Amino acid sequence: MSKPMPISGFPEWTPSQRMIEQYVLDRLRDTFELYGFAPLETRAVEPLDQLLRKGETSKEVYVIRRLHEEEGAAPTAEDTLGLHFDLTVPFARYVLENAGKLQFPFRRYQIQKVWRGERPQEGRYREFLQADIDIVDRDTLAPHHEAEMPLVIGDALRGLPIPPVRIQVNNRKVCEGFYLGLGLTDPEAALRAVDKLDKIGPDKVAELLGETAGATEAQAKACLALAQISAPDASFAAEVRALGVSHPLLDEGIEELTRVVETAAAHAPGLCVADLRIARGLDYYTGTVYETQLQGFERFGSICSGGRYDNLASSGANRFPGVGISIGVSRLLGLLFGADRLTVSRSVPTCVLVAVPTEERRAETDRIAQALRGRGIPCEVSPSAAKFGKQIRYAERRGIPYVWFPGADGAPDEVKDIRSGEQVAADAGEWNPPRADLKPLVS
Amino acid sequence: MSKPMPISGFPEWTPSQRMIEQYVLDRLRDTFELYGFAPLETRAVEPLDQLLRKGETSKEVYVIRRLHEEEGAAPTAEDTLGLHFDLTVPFARYVLENAGKLQFPFRRYQIQKVWRGERPQEGRYREFLQADIDIVDRDTLAPHHEAEMPLVIGDALRGLPIPPVRIQVNNRKVCEGFYLGLGLTDPEAALRAVDKLDKIGPDKVAELLGETAGATEAQAKACLALAQISAPDASFAAEVRALGVSHPLLDEGIEELTRVVETAAAHAPGLCVADLRIARGLDYYTGTVYETQLQGFERFGSICSGGRYDNLASSGANRFPGVGISIGVSRLLGLLFGADRLTVSRSVPTCVLVAVPTEERRAETDRIAQALRGRGIPCEVSPSAAKFGKQIRYAERRGIPYVWFPGADGAPDEVKDIRSGEQVAADAGEWNPPRADLKPLVS
Repeated sequence: MSKPMPISGFPEWTPSQRMIEQYVLDRLRDTFELYGFAPLETRAVEPLDQLLRKGETSKEVYVIRRLHEEEGAAPTAEDTLGLHFDLTVPFARYVLENAGKLQFPFRRYQIQKVWRGERPQEGRYREFLQADIDIVDRDTLAPHHEAEMPLVIGDALRGLPIPPVRIQVNNRKVCEGFYLGLGLTDPEAALRAVDKLDKIGPDKVAELLGETAGATEAQAKACLALAQISAPDASFAAEVRALGVSHPLLDEGIEELTRVVETAAAHAPGLCVADLRIARGLDYYTGTVYETQLQGFERFGSICSGGRYDNLASSGANRFPGVGISIGVSRLLGLLFGADRLTVSRSVPTCVLVAVPTEERRAETDRIAQALRGRGIPCEVSPSAAKFGKQIRYAERRGIPYVWFPGADGAPDEVKDIRSGEQVAADAGEWNPPRADLKPLVS
Repeated sequence: MSKPMPISGFPEWTPSQRMIEQYVLDRLRDTFELYGFAPLETRAVEPLDQLLRKGETSKEVYVIRRLHEEEGAAPTAEDTLGLHFDLTVPFARYVLENAGKLQFPFRRYQIQKVWRGERPQEGRYREFLQADIDIVDRDTLAPHHEAEMPLVIGDALRGLPIPPVRIQVNNRKVCEGFYLGLGLTDPEAALRAVDKLDKIGPDKVAELLGETAGATEAQAKACLALAQISAPDASFAAEVRALGVSHPLLDEGIEELTRVVETAAAHAPGLCVADLRIARGLDYYTGTVYETQLQGFERFGSICSGGRYDNLASSGANRFPGVGISIGVSRLLGLLFGADRLTVSRSVPTCVLVAVPTEERRAETDRIAQALRGRGIPCEVSPSAAKFGKQIRYAERRGIPYVWFPGADGAPDEVKDIRSGEQVAADAGEWNPPRADLKPLVS
């Protein structure tokens, strides 16, 4: 076998990085559970026709086939399975499938890998980890849930060793109502054009608004003026009104967005900002939308996005409107690892290496290790009865802080802090490391 | 959208079952870390040619393709990606790829989904979760690691609310050495025949030994006699010797197996048994092999298997022999869920529901919830300001034990244990639930 190479778009962390990732996931999970979200995992695959319900994403889907099935007839979109590209579409399907067994409103979190067949030259991941929270209800969903989402995320991210975040909130009804009030007849086309503002700039967006949404120059200018509005509080509403456009959907949107921004300002000042350029690419959002910028990493785009969707989980007369938000964990960590902003104090969980004087005494060292583990102290027994200097270097290379030396001829055991060199007599049934040394520290 | 249906072979747990699964995974992870195993995750995909290195598994592999690539030329086995069917093959690849960055011996655990294109009529999962530990070293691997594996697993499983387990250990060198000593020239064919003992019985195995391994009736009888040997200690060795076969490889195998069984008997009496019928289907094992039976569920086969592999991670002059063992988490939980052997005390993490007297007071109830969360108490605010009776039923249906009533007109808040009906005055900055109520209890 020749030396294997990485596969573009499929990142793999080192064990140290995975320790940091686990630390982050544990903190996220703790926060989600503090808010009463129940855990859920869905299968990795969905029928292709489900994944393609929103046409825009079709190019990104990976389909799977059993190897020995390849020779047979091509399966239909219904029979073909694809890897999920997000956790919202599978969740909506899960809710419809299990509605009879669930209690509504249903709050769940879901932390799983997703896959997208992006072109690797765009520098995007093809496999990455997302951490989602969603709330769905039957028939109607109370608007206060839209205000709750950013608060949960703010809490979850505040507990992590990462730069501060700013959550940008908008409401599609504001944009669509505004476009309709302006006299544009295809508000979705206008939304898609404005969504490209960061990428192509205002002049090109104005052109695009003319080409795809039939906007006049004045209409395009008004659309761009709306997208410029940004405020940390409900004052955005007056700025919108000042543009002189009115429509019932616009009123509805302004009311909803005001509520989200005001709740956030009351409970977590500085966390949220109303930013009327935020649109989100995916089609299924129908009201509030969220994006999140990481301070110092703004140019890399949103690390946490979501919104309200009224029609994603619907079947006949059953309607389950929902709101959700998704943290791009791999994306977030990839940025911070790349900037060397996250470190861990050692590369293994081990706190103590039990030295082995001779192979004949391995059973004895195993018992020492067992006594330490029984009291929650992670330890390894040295893999060989090499000279103690070599065993100490084994610990040093991994960042293991303590080496334990079994006593001989009635002498007590001793434990050495290999950072300070301090060595003291110790009993495996009683000794404890300082609390800070027990587990690897993430900072 | 019509009501979605489950996909055969792709199980999904309920949120309550997922809580149990998370509890199990947390306990496994704790134990693995107490033994100094570092965490690792590998990508879900490997190049198809890597997955097919062991031909026997080719029929089980899922290949993936980007949807819009399907029209193009068929990619080669090197370009084609498949979903991994276990965690050992990807781990061996990871070790080869990153050998320069790793410290050896390298101890890692890995808890991930794997996929196999099994025929669904066999009642097997196509997507399932495995929890693996492995130790690899450069050039040579000390044999005491083979004795350590079952001790880690014994510890990990003993901490779970599951029936006791028995780990069956064998060594391929015993079998292969015995077959060679008997005069059989294709010991692998003999091993594969004996591996079918549980499925097809001794008579058919004897036939198969004749057909595929060229065994005479007497040789087949000896092979079956070896497979009958089972002992909780080193006494198996005398039973093997009594069959009158000798070969250097047999001696080596007996010595290695004796060591594993004796270490286990010293540290965890009753955990392991030498069972000479255990073979393991996969080709890559070269010495010790493990299987594990769950008491009361023996007929369902092994829930935790593994062994030593000397040649899986090799590239040119670089050789990384390893030993590993894998807990079939989905399989284990599927069995226990099916037998109603695992329950959790509530279906949500929530300990306290904060009741909302009127929508005008929602901000106040949000602050109460925040005070409780700040002290680690999981809580939700009621989704609506319905009558208190309805809000209490919201809690009841989910198993939430406490409902919090905000005081009015200067009266203190009160908290009600809805199981006993007891209601007391309480302050959100001070009140604590009994420890047993804080988190859902798994039993």
